[in-house]
Amino acid sequence: MNGQKNRDKESEIIVKLKKRQYKIIVGQGIIPSAGLRLRGLFENIESCNIISDRTVAKLYLDDLTKGLNSAGIKPNKIIISPGEISKGFKTLENVLEQIILTQSDRKTPIIALGGGVVGDIAGFAASIVLRGVPFIQIPTTLLAQVDSSVGGKTGINSAHGKNLIGSFHQPRLVLADTKTLDSLSKRELLAGYAEVVKYAVINKPSFFSWLENNYTSVLGLEKEALEYTVSLCCKAKAEIVMLDELETGERALLNLGHTFGHALETEAGYNGTLLHGEAVAAGLVIASKLSTKLGLCSNKDYLRIISHLDSVGLPTKVKDLPFSKLNKEKLLSHISHDKKAKNGWPNFVLINGIGKASIEEVDQDSVQKTLSEFIENK
Amino acid sequence: MNGQKNRDKESEIIVKLKKRQYKIIVGQGIIPSAGLRLRGLFENIESCNIISDRTVAKLYLDDLTKGLNSAGIKPNKIIISPGEISKGFKTLENVLEQIILTQSDRKTPIIALGGGVVGDIAGFAASIVLRGVPFIQIPTTLLAQVDSSVGGKTGINSAHGKNLIGSFHQPRLVLADTKTLDSLSKRELLAGYAEVVKYAVINKPSFFSWLENNYTSVLGLEKEALEYTVSLCCKAKAEIVMLDELETGERALLNLGHTFGHALETEAGYNGTLLHGEAVAAGLVIASKLSTKLGLCSNKDYLRIISHLDSVGLPTKVKDLPFSKLNKEKLLSHISHDKKAKNGWPNFVLINGIGKASIEEVDQDSVQKTLSEFIENK
Repeated sequence: MNGQKNRDKESEIIVKLKKRQYKIIVGQGIIPSAGLRLRGLFENIESCNIISDRTVAKLYLDDLTKGLNSAGIKPNKIIISPGEISKGFKTLENVLEQIILTQSDRKTPIIALGGGVVGDIAGFAASIVLRGVPFIQIPTTLLAQVDSSVGGKTGINSAHGKNLIGSFHQPRLVLADTKTLDSLSKRELLAGYAEVVKYAVINKPSFFSWLENNYTSVLGLEKEALEYTVSLCCKAKAEIVMLDELETGERALLNLGHTFGHALETEAGYNGTLLHGEAVAAGLVIASKLSTKLGLCSNKDYLRIISHLDSVGLPTKVKDLPFSKLNKEKLLSHISHDKKAKNGWPNFVLINGIGKASIEEVDQDSVQKTLSEFIENK
Repeated sequence: MNGQKNRDKESEIIVKLKKRQYKIIVGQGIIPSAGLRLRGLFENIESCNIISDRTVAKLYLDDLTKGLNSAGIKPNKIIISPGEISKGFKTLENVLEQIILTQSDRKTPIIALGGGVVGDIAGFAASIVLRGVPFIQIPTTLLAQVDSSVGGKTGINSAHGKNLIGSFHQPRLVLADTKTLDSLSKRELLAGYAEVVKYAVINKPSFFSWLENNYTSVLGLEKEALEYTVSLCCKAKAEIVMLDELETGERALLNLGHTFGHALETEAGYNGTLLHGEAVAAGLVIASKLSTKLGLCSNKDYLRIISHLDSVGLPTKVKDLPFSKLNKEKLLSHISHDKKAKNGWPNFVLINGIGKASIEEVDQDSVQKTLSEFIENK
């Protein structure tokens, strides 16, 4: 069985939460091992629900199904349309009603097989169908493997903003099969890489140096480099989530680059012209610029961040973004409507150099000036 | 202020959960005190969202609004249609989008002002908007005051069954104003009374005797009798919820009469011909009959239960129910699809006499025979 054979080639991260703990397994070709692993987690399991999208299902659903069948687990398959458009009420209702029709009970797990959208909607469905069933993540994009599949945030978009409806529902297992990254486009891979850089900048300075020297191996999908990168990011995220599962404090560090990133995404309109990771890369640049302006970050570290993002081909300047004209006032308005804003203005994650992020109150004037400079390419 | 003046006339129950505790306050005319109580719970509160239905809003929304305003809290009002029809996806989506449009943040509480439907949908909305905001219950029916407002179960109906989608989200405060029961119809009051009898039968035998002697005072809405009844039921429920918040064990005792009750409700079609409490009364009779058949409950206790339900005017026989013909096979099919069924058959809550409920595995044959006898009025 693949799961057995590959054990020595896998990395395992244990996420310890208040109520229980779960494992993140990172390895090549580990999807077929899901069956035996589920059997190990849920002794009397007879069936499960797989949620996937059409694109991912074509590539990996057979492998997963075979693994489940060989462990005596019957999979019900629920396939949604690919893309952000599925992350709304209509798809959620449809998925929930399909699960209910299978006669699932409270012990029937839901498996998410796909990227961030599939993981978010499947996790949310798992948290509310029958008031909660077990949830398994099999992320198939770099973004999902290093970021969205770990930590238990689930949800859908409101008509008025992203991820405004959802819950915290921790997975019981995450299987990150790095083999699935072979099928990503260069652009999708890079978008995921932006979150990798984010972790390095938050609190892993030596990993940042490693990335500067080894990014071609990571983006060239070399097995060891990928496994090291995905494991290290999962570990970095898990460390923060274990301290603050429900985001009352330090978990907000994970939003480095995201306040500005979300404003750019909202302005772009979530239509595929600006991917989340691309927005995060530009957001990282703006957050670093603001940190430098406030005297927290050295100009040297700021330039190192820009230089690394430039090297890999992520957007760092306004001309790299899909806007003919970027309006400062509109960005400020999006920032004031951020989900984490209180009384119309959020705190910001800033950096005291590479590897030292912190959450700070920042005056509107400094943010305005930083945005102006970014827009005017100063 | 009403809240202060009434303190000596109120009962207070403290529900201690793992993460936090909350109070249930039972008293007459305490709705206007909500403002100061919220100010006490949430120091910097500026606004809140009230969810109510048109019928209840007409009667009590002004009182609540005045109380909030006088405490400097701005209420946003979200009014839904009365009745079970509102307990679906469409209303949920509408309520969530309205909350999001108010620019609420994660500390803006949601107040449910109404009966079970309002409480269930408002509590569910509170658990998923912005991944969870604080929730306050102001139940205005007897059913909601003694049962649905306590314990944190929230949810909506699926197209394929009741309460199949939802979450556990505990309130931060429950204000049960017994004055609101004045506006209930006799039928609604009685439906709530069925749950009162349920608590007595589960584990409060002396309360059962008290009800036998005092039911006219309770149903006559005498202040002290009502307050005693509501407090005692809340205490009974809280005791069980504190032991088993997420219903992994003994909390299932609260479903006494509900497996049969739900089957009857499903068969009636949730169109108002059979209220939940009426179905629970008949369900209690069937569960007691089954307990007697299995030798667990004495015939004397079984007859006492029937006699009490008869005295108050709740349905105890098939002729009291709105079916021209009741089909045993259909009821069995509903039972096998019960939310709590595993592999197509649920456990049953039975009684070892009045005041001693337990959860038991029961063979299909005994259930079949009991249903036949009930249907044939034996």
